[in-house]
Amino acid sequence: MFLEKLRKEVLEANLELVRRGLVLYTFGNASGIDRESGRVAIKPSGVPYEELTPDQMVISDLDGNIVEGKLRPSSDLPTHLELYRNFPHIGGVAHTHSEYATSWAQAEKPIPCFGTTHADYFHGEVPVTARLSSSQITSEYERETGVAIRERFRSLDPDRIPAVLVAGHAPFCWGPSPGEAAHNAVTLEYVARMAYHTLVINAESQPLMRELHDKHFLRKHGQTAYYGQVKK
Amino acid sequence: MFLEKLRKEVLEANLELVRRGLVLYTFGNASGIDRESGRVAIKPSGVPYEELTPDQMVISDLDGNIVEGKLRPSSDLPTHLELYRNFPHIGGVAHTHSEYATSWAQAEKPIPCFGTTHADYFHGEVPVTARLSSSQITSEYERETGVAIRERFRSLDPDRIPAVLVAGHAPFCWGPSPGEAAHNAVTLEYVARMAYHTLVINAESQPLMRELHDKHFLRKHGQTAYYGQVKK
Amino acid sequence: MFLEKLRKEVLEANLELVRRGLVLYTFGNASGIDRESGRVAIKPSGVPYEELTPDQMVISDLDGNIVEGKLRPSSDLPTHLELYRNFPHIGGVAHTHSEYATSWAQAEKPIPCFGTTHADYFHGEVPVTARLSSSQITSEYERETGVAIRERFRSLDPDRIPAVLVAGHAPFCWGPSPGEAAHNAVTLEYVARMAYHTLVINAESQPLMRELHDKHFLRKHGQTAYYGQVKK
Amino acid sequence: MFLEKLRKEVLEANLELVRRGLVLYTFGNASGIDRESGRVAIKPSGVPYEELTPDQMVISDLDGNIVEGKLRPSSDLPTHLELYRNFPHIGGVAHTHSEYATSWAQAEKPIPCFGTTHADYFHGEVPVTARLSSSQITSEYERETGVAIRERFRSLDPDRIPAVLVAGHAPFCWGPSPGEAAHNAVTLEYVARMAYHTLVINAESQPLMRELHDKHFLRKHGQTAYYGQVKK
Repeated sequence: MFLEKLRKEVLEANLELVRRGLVLYTFGNASGIDRESGRVAIKPSGVPYEELTPDQMVISDLDGNIVEGKLRPSSDLPTHLELYRNFPHIGGVAHTHSEYATSWAQAEKPIPCFGTTHADYFHGEVPVTARLSSSQITSEYERETGVAIRERFRSLDPDRIPAVLVAGHAPFCWGPSPGEAAHNAVTLEYVARMAYHTLVINAESQPLMRELHDKHFLRKHGQTAYYGQVKK
Repeated sequence: MFLEKLRKEVLEANLELVRRGLVLYTFGNASGIDRESGRVAIKPSGVPYEELTPDQMVISDLDGNIVEGKLRPSSDLPTHLELYRNFPHIGGVAHTHSEYATSWAQAEKPIPCFGTTHADYFHGEVPVTARLSSSQITSEYERETGVAIRERFRSLDPDRIPAVLVAGHAPFCWGPSPGEAAHNAVTLEYVARMAYHTLVINAESQPLMRELHDKHFLRKHGQTAYYGQVKK
Repeated sequence: MFLEKLRKEVLEANLELVRRGLVLYTFGNASGIDRESGRVAIKPSGVPYEELTPDQMVISDLDGNIVEGKLRPSSDLPTHLELYRNFPHIGGVAHTHSEYATSWAQAEKPIPCFGTTHADYFHGEVPVTARLSSSQITSEYERETGVAIRERFRSLDPDRIPAVLVAGHAPFCWGPSPGEAAHNAVTLEYVARMAYHTLVINAESQPLMRELHDKHFLRKHGQTAYYGQVKK
Repeated sequence: MFLEKLRKEVLEANLELVRRGLVLYTFGNASGIDRESGRVAIKPSGVPYEELTPDQMVISDLDGNIVEGKLRPSSDLPTHLELYRNFPHIGGVAHTHSEYATSWAQAEKPIPCFGTTHADYFHGEVPVTARLSSSQITSEYERETGVAIRERFRSLDPDRIPAVLVAGHAPFCWGPSPGEAAHNAVTLEYVARMAYHTLVINAESQPLMRELHDKHFLRKHGQTAYYGQVKK
């Protein structure tokens, strides 16, 4: 029952990435977790999005054992699992090769917070991981990608900065649910585009003042939020 | 009766922002005012555009008291009200986080007038506000955003330059009606894109000659206008 | 009879500009001429493209006297007429504010020929006019725009370079027919985008070798052309 | 029989270029070869894509003799044939003037491998040919374009780097089939866009580490590949 719901949510999150133009061909993947059972649902590897159905979502446990599904899971599953194991409040992960966020990852530069659009979603700059070492690449590469993310967040709060750029690769985003992870991937791409343009217009552009950054983030998140309608 | 018409116009102005690609998710908002009654209609906060109906538009008075509507108004309502109170000829306000105009706001650079497209709509460069002070941010932030705009226009004519960039935030545009405010937001984005490209091509690009700027603005505005069809 | 055909061709050329994304709102205009009668058909001023019908095209003679049509012609008509009077082989003119070509016009830089795509259509760089003088602006501005183009082509062949950038304004394109004028406007925008990117990648990029420029232009134009199907 | 299949595949590859936005008007062309018979099918020259039918594909032998078809073949046929003659494992060729890949070709700069998206498809930077000499241009220009590509690949493996930038012209891509050639053309454009942005963000960006480049390429290609579903 809960798996049926999870599969649908994960499919929907994957399709949101396509609808918003973040995905070329079969690039990218989104997953979700049911924390009670520890079951993770993820997109199968290399299947065209237009053909995806909920029951094609692959179900694994937190150690990567496939418990349901006939298809291979996305090859990035071990990265997702490493995030679920280390960021206990997240319920979904979305990975894309979206054009601008990926370019920042390739340039190995964090995305500075230049405005309130960024501040509404990410409470600080979006960080870049260290490059993986040769031994990390040649051993369990996908899991080590998750390890590099975890290491980068040692002194950062993943609930307040729900995105990272993996050096030379692309962004990973997360959130309380698969849908919110996908939503964060979409806003990250938008923020990445605008930060790029901002620096082209003015290479000396300054990050947003801390007070304004806090104001906007807290206007949308936490107990004092007053954006949107009251949730019942 | 007039409120019904106003609600429809305001809804339509909001939808125009979406149709023209200026809006991601629930970003942005447009409002309109009925000057006789002093009633303002504005988009509700955080409601998806595809679900918006005229009767969801929230009605407030010029002091921000909600007089009709079950939903919370856009959190930027106090900014809109500050503009209506200080710019007596405007009938609509449109706020977006459109990609290029927002990038100029983040770079804290006014948009120079490099060509006749700009001159057709904005009679001078599009200015940037000062940064808000810490006390402005922590007190009535949204109203203070309007105050910063008003201050920036002390020596400018809001009827001839119907747009501003709020530093580190995004553009606000206005016009005689909600529809014209949205139209100005769309052309501002276009002008912002072209000014950006112009400087990339030639960092020494020079603003348009004053005579040509006047010529184009007055070709479309005021008593000697001769663009378009004769209005009856 | 011939006017009916001309009106349809001119409407179609105007719509092609819209379909190819060169036009925002009512910006831009295309016209055509019937050389035998000296009649010119042009888009009316400020009418939304989606509402345009063939019979709304305004018919003028080469001196700008309106001979048919109830609407005002595009305010740029005198520029078109100046081109028809001076470039005897052209049958159509298209004017847009397309994003990249306009940015080059605003930057007052000719578009260099960096590749075969450019060479296929324009046999040399796309030139920029001189700025108009104050007296040109304050007298017959639109006609003087045409004069500035004519002056720029004193030593250039308008049949081999069917486009120009008006300084601080936007491109004008032309061709043997309204449709080909619009086609040239579309390819100009594409060429303008790629020349822009080329310089961003490598500021020292070199124009195409003359031999290759000739080869490509003549592969598509003139008596030795061998691109496309044989015309009967 | 095999020609019918080949024609359909070649048409489909041509249409994929259109669907993915790589083609303006009649620019570009894709072809395929049946290695057993040595028959090549290619798009006819200058025919609008929306009108193309399988039986319009032109069939030639490897020396360029037309064996079936009433239309002229794409004028770039001799380039395709040179590639088929020299790269024995390829089954399809796709040529476009796609915006960013063409800009790199015009800038005469190879596309560096800055990330895993590139590494997934191209096992090394995407190279640029030398400029053609005057005599190459004025003799058999299109065949000489193929010769320049062949020369550039003297020390490169065309099966691992299925794309090239022809200096001052545009990309040619290939693959085991016409569909995969088109697929490579689409990903090349995407990789070209991101490499461009990467250098704008950080002019000192470093190519991907060799180990990671190998890892990603081999994750998708060769005997140890584990991306996608198991092929039966």
